[in-house]
Amino acid sequence: MAFNSFGNLLKLTTFGESHGNTMGGIIDGFPAGVSIDLGAVQNELNRRKPGQSKIVTQRKEPDTVEFISGIFKGKTTGTSIGFQIKNTNQKSHDYSHNTDVYRPSHADFTYDKKFGIRDYRGGGRSSARETANWVVAGALAKQLISFISINAYTSSVGELSMEKEYQQLDFSKTESNIVRCPDEKMAHKMIDKIKEIRKQGDTIGGTISCVVQNMPVGLGEPIFKKLHAELGKAMLSINAVKGFEFGSGFKGTTMKGSEHNDIFNTDGSTQTNLSGGIQGGISNGMDIYFRVAFKPVATIMQNQDTINSKGEETEIMGKGRHDPCVVPRAVPVVEALTALVLADFWLLNKTRKI
Amino acid sequence: MAFNSFGNLLKLTTFGESHGNTMGGIIDGFPAGVSIDLGAVQNELNRRKPGQSKIVTQRKEPDTVEFISGIFKGKTTGTSIGFQIKNTNQKSHDYSHNTDVYRPSHADFTYDKKFGIRDYRGGGRSSARETANWVVAGALAKQLISFISINAYTSSVGELSMEKEYQQLDFSKTESNIVRCPDEKMAHKMIDKIKEIRKQGDTIGGTISCVVQNMPVGLGEPIFKKLHAELGKAMLSINAVKGFEFGSGFKGTTMKGSEHNDIFNTDGSTQTNLSGGIQGGISNGMDIYFRVAFKPVATIMQNQDTINSKGEETEIMGKGRHDPCVVPRAVPVVEALTALVLADFWLLNKTRKI
Amino acid sequence: MAFNSFGNLLKLTTFGESHGNTMGGIIDGFPAGVSIDLGAVQNELNRRKPGQSKIVTQRKEPDTVEFISGIFKGKTTGTSIGFQIKNTNQKSHDYSHNTDVYRPSHADFTYDKKFGIRDYRGGGRSSARETANWVVAGALAKQLISFISINAYTSSVGELSMEKEYQQLDFSKTESNIVRCPDEKMAHKMIDKIKEIRKQGDTIGGTISCVVQNMPVGLGEPIFKKLHAELGKAMLSINAVKGFEFGSGFKGTTMKGSEHNDIFNTDGSTQTNLSGGIQGGISNGMDIYFRVAFKPVATIMQNQDTINSKGEETEIMGKGRHDPCVVPRAVPVVEALTALVLADFWLLNKTRKI
Amino acid sequence: MAFNSFGNLLKLTTFGESHGNTMGGIIDGFPAGVSIDLGAVQNELNRRKPGQSKIVTQRKEPDTVEFISGIFKGKTTGTSIGFQIKNTNQKSHDYSHNTDVYRPSHADFTYDKKFGIRDYRGGGRSSARETANWVVAGALAKQLISFISINAYTSSVGELSMEKEYQQLDFSKTESNIVRCPDEKMAHKMIDKIKEIRKQGDTIGGTISCVVQNMPVGLGEPIFKKLHAELGKAMLSINAVKGFEFGSGFKGTTMKGSEHNDIFNTDGSTQTNLSGGIQGGISNGMDIYFRVAFKPVATIMQNQDTINSKGEETEIMGKGRHDPCVVPRAVPVVEALTALVLADFWLLNKTRKI
Repeated sequence: MAFNSFGNLLKLTTFGESHGNTMGGIIDGFPAGVSIDLGAVQNELNRRKPGQSKIVTQRKEPDTVEFISGIFKGKTTGTSIGFQIKNTNQKSHDYSHNTDVYRPSHADFTYDKKFGIRDYRGGGRSSARETANWVVAGALAKQLISFISINAYTSSVGELSMEKEYQQLDFSKTESNIVRCPDEKMAHKMIDKIKEIRKQGDTIGGTISCVVQNMPVGLGEPIFKKLHAELGKAMLSINAVKGFEFGSGFKGTTMKGSEHNDIFNTDGSTQTNLSGGIQGGISNGMDIYFRVAFKPVATIMQNQDTINSKGEETEIMGKGRHDPCVVPRAVPVVEALTALVLADFWLLNKTRKI
Repeated sequence: MAFNSFGNLLKLTTFGESHGNTMGGIIDGFPAGVSIDLGAVQNELNRRKPGQSKIVTQRKEPDTVEFISGIFKGKTTGTSIGFQIKNTNQKSHDYSHNTDVYRPSHADFTYDKKFGIRDYRGGGRSSARETANWVVAGALAKQLISFISINAYTSSVGELSMEKEYQQLDFSKTESNIVRCPDEKMAHKMIDKIKEIRKQGDTIGGTISCVVQNMPVGLGEPIFKKLHAELGKAMLSINAVKGFEFGSGFKGTTMKGSEHNDIFNTDGSTQTNLSGGIQGGISNGMDIYFRVAFKPVATIMQNQDTINSKGEETEIMGKGRHDPCVVPRAVPVVEALTALVLADFWLLNKTRKI
Repeated sequence: MAFNSFGNLLKLTTFGESHGNTMGGIIDGFPAGVSIDLGAVQNELNRRKPGQSKIVTQRKEPDTVEFISGIFKGKTTGTSIGFQIKNTNQKSHDYSHNTDVYRPSHADFTYDKKFGIRDYRGGGRSSARETANWVVAGALAKQLISFISINAYTSSVGELSMEKEYQQLDFSKTESNIVRCPDEKMAHKMIDKIKEIRKQGDTIGGTISCVVQNMPVGLGEPIFKKLHAELGKAMLSINAVKGFEFGSGFKGTTMKGSEHNDIFNTDGSTQTNLSGGIQGGISNGMDIYFRVAFKPVATIMQNQDTINSKGEETEIMGKGRHDPCVVPRAVPVVEALTALVLADFWLLNKTRKI
Repeated sequence: MAFNSFGNLLKLTTFGESHGNTMGGIIDGFPAGVSIDLGAVQNELNRRKPGQSKIVTQRKEPDTVEFISGIFKGKTTGTSIGFQIKNTNQKSHDYSHNTDVYRPSHADFTYDKKFGIRDYRGGGRSSARETANWVVAGALAKQLISFISINAYTSSVGELSMEKEYQQLDFSKTESNIVRCPDEKMAHKMIDKIKEIRKQGDTIGGTISCVVQNMPVGLGEPIFKKLHAELGKAMLSINAVKGFEFGSGFKGTTMKGSEHNDIFNTDGSTQTNLSGGIQGGISNGMDIYFRVAFKPVATIMQNQDTINSKGEETEIMGKGRHDPCVVPRAVPVVEALTALVLADFWLLNKTRKI
């Protein structure tokens, strides 16, 4: 039972507010003896950081991670891995204007009602800046299970939705454009769309798809640790996420069993993969694929009616450094959480059979 | 860390195989002093039990729950609540024909690969019969948080999808028909559809929607215990579920922020509720609503090619007592898990503020 | 977080009141593929059961365990193992006389104050009958880690304390006498002492020592899962336990470092073993040994002044079927919990190094 | 399940090696709205810090705590509280001499065998420097349950053992001498003893007693969260601890039930308190008192035979800045963990009754 921890054997616990001087976390249960490529960790953070392109927030923040413990001479020691990301962009903001205003569809109202107090600077703990911590932990997890391949990408922005199946895509192209869509044509459309939305002072939603390849058979547990249930919980923990589906997903509800069943090949693989690589909560070795729905960012550059903590009517207008679409920067976050879940279940699975 | 437990402070742990003589569970953390209406618990089980109508499996099973501990003179005592459901329909089946066959899109293959052994009788632990345990625990949870109203219903069967918003529905009608759709016209169509599918020896998917009303503000936690993430995990734990969305869900991804934001009224309620009653992971007092996708049941009354544990090709054909559509019987399961999550978070919330 | 669960990966959750019709539990996380000797499990229960000798309670209770799930064709399946022990001695007692009386040094008062309600029949959940559940789970754990040898024995009864070191003892003699002391001479004295105490209508305390041999190196964790801390917690969970010490224990506090340090042999073993087989929370391969203090049983066959729930003065006198000394029957309980802790840490350790 | 976390609802997770540049932790589950006295926190750290007197290690380390998140305008916000303690004394030590040597009765050998790697600088994660983190968290916990009074003190050093009962002591005198014994006469003897031992280049063990007053009734849980079991586990987690007893403890094993039972007064208090304030695992409102055994520090200023990681014989001699007796500096650590346990159970208890 913990409010700020994720995972079972491999467990991440985090702290930090958006505009505090530092955020960070502790990774517990990471096995000893893993050589860590620190550059690869920072690279994942760079994929998430603000200011990386024209279609994301122009806030400048290097998001440099510093490991404090648990890694010695380049290898993990089995003890807890502490890390921190310092906030270099911690201006002496003037927060006086909005300390008391509830931004629509933000967490201001609920934090205040729940806790009776909130750190209003930049959203405090509710800011998506927290996901930088997750990317650090996920980058280590990726190195632990480097034999598994995890690829997320932007699959829709607003109404612009990729029709291609993931099998038709070349994931090496995902990072070749700033929206992180491996279909270049679609990528350009998406980028244009986001620019247009930004000009309107508005925001737009989208979806991220994720594909896991080279999965070992047997990860996940029968009842309350089903692999897809943990993946779903992970994704639904990301700021702005409204939905999760895997394999045939919502479309699968319209199918018949005779169409939906995945018939076996004699090697145990299946001819189709509507199951999405998981049967009975346990990976079957086929590709896992799932899709995550992100709502439009709540902070818009338009005047909105709202209230303050006294219930008085007021107005609010976002200031200039927010993402018009959260999806491009959320791609590495989806991958990070996927890696954390899979690494955790991979460790768990070492104990499940004599 | 537990493979067969659900919840944090209010925790259900279960045991039992489909064709074993008993299944049951232990409910831990239930507060003392709650008067329990045992009839209401049994009533929830009856909503889930097989043989209840023409469109569900015709297996006969009374599913009578027996409480063994933790309730004394009609009230909970604060100690663990043990319960069991005896299997009265435990025929001396002849399992010799399929002990070694992997049913397509079932858990046979993955259990065998993961554990090296499986109880093949009726699917063993992978059977949805397990959800009877959840309904028992959920029925107690409902009584703990009786001030909250939870209503699930069948919102689609195959392509037949209800267009009405939940606000237009009368939930008191849900139990008036065997498919559990509160719109009678649609209910009849759905029933006819399921009957038609059954005649084909086939199965069909569907969706269940769930609405939570009279929610207190403040349930859920900022980072890794977001209320919707736990609800999502709960739903994804139900057999055959492939997706979860809440509030605006996947449709919300096509919207702009200016359309999607829920503007406050001066009493803290919101004019729209695309947030689905949860902001920043915490309930805001508005209705919570979500939708759950169920794939078609994998067991069909048709010949299917498959393999056995030696990788040899063989055929399989389901025998006659399976559900053509899982959705009608899953409605009380969705409610039960919702109640468990909400009761758990309600207890947790008692500790979050001085 | 659970109130009625013990363990991390290998987890026991229990239910049941002393005079209810059944008690039992669920063992979660037990690996698949372990052949279970059911006779050996029952044998452990028989070592704990009432009525086994003249110096224990004369209540008759067969304490027969029934496994319900998780074992198939003699082997564990990796799913949760449900078990129950039926109460055959569940007389229609007349409890009217003491429903409202707080027995001195029992849990009646604290249960009532904490929960506002209690099952007063036989102490309800506070009865040491619960430990039968632990013995079942511990018996399975012993079979999982059968390469480790665990031997507990009665090391003192009242002032009668064994002077011999465990190395001088022949553990195969422990079961040769009813007090479970491997030194026969001392055993006879202890038995006489207990008989004398019983004649007085009184009770007496004692200690149990436990020795673990053939320990693998590396079980236990550096900070908050130190092996001895979990063993200590386990022992302190047993009814009537007031203290725990391992290795040099309280006597070690009077020693100098130069006397207390265990000097290494070149094979990594140590010349002395004041550390008690654990250094820095982690087993070093030497024998683990510890000692557990049990207070005298609170129920005595003498008149005692006490109060009822209204704070009125009254008297109470135990009735005839209680243990004059808890220690002989607690020996298998100590072993069972030791086995549970070690098996749990053995599983955990499979995940701690690449 | 976490290796570096302590507590249930109120949970501390820590990181940091002895000679790393920073150590720290995350406090999760601390309720919102508590005004924090930062000076009082630092004061607790000062009680633990090295160099504070002549009878402790002369290492200089200010151990200044810095809170990073979770406290806003002097009050807790309900989000996770991150803190760190920077290491200002992190010299560029020359570790080349002992990187490969196993110090007797230290954790060097077990860490190496378990993890295959260890941070040998100052003992790495096995150093008691970790307890500084615990003191920080405990200091916050003390402020949460400020209505409870917690007083630990040195009750023995080697053979010098206080005879007085705690009721005869004036706890306000504990901090008046450097050994933290509230009996001044005994304190002087203890101080002299420690000085003598230090001159010998040796170390000595001791015991700490702890008394909890103004306890609410009802904290603790019946089966596996017994209050004394969690206290015992907490104490056994402290470096160098070999034993724990509460109430009558090991002495109670020699008593008869008729002597040991605590007879009630009509107000629910008891005439004696051999139970030590806990019955059936639950506090009864009487004082809780317990005793903790500390072995002599393993690092001595004498030549010792030992081995290196290749199993070769070698010698080792401690260098000059270690504690001759751990007990004086461990007093605040005992209090801190006691506060953490009690605060955690106090929160838990808010959920146990309707």
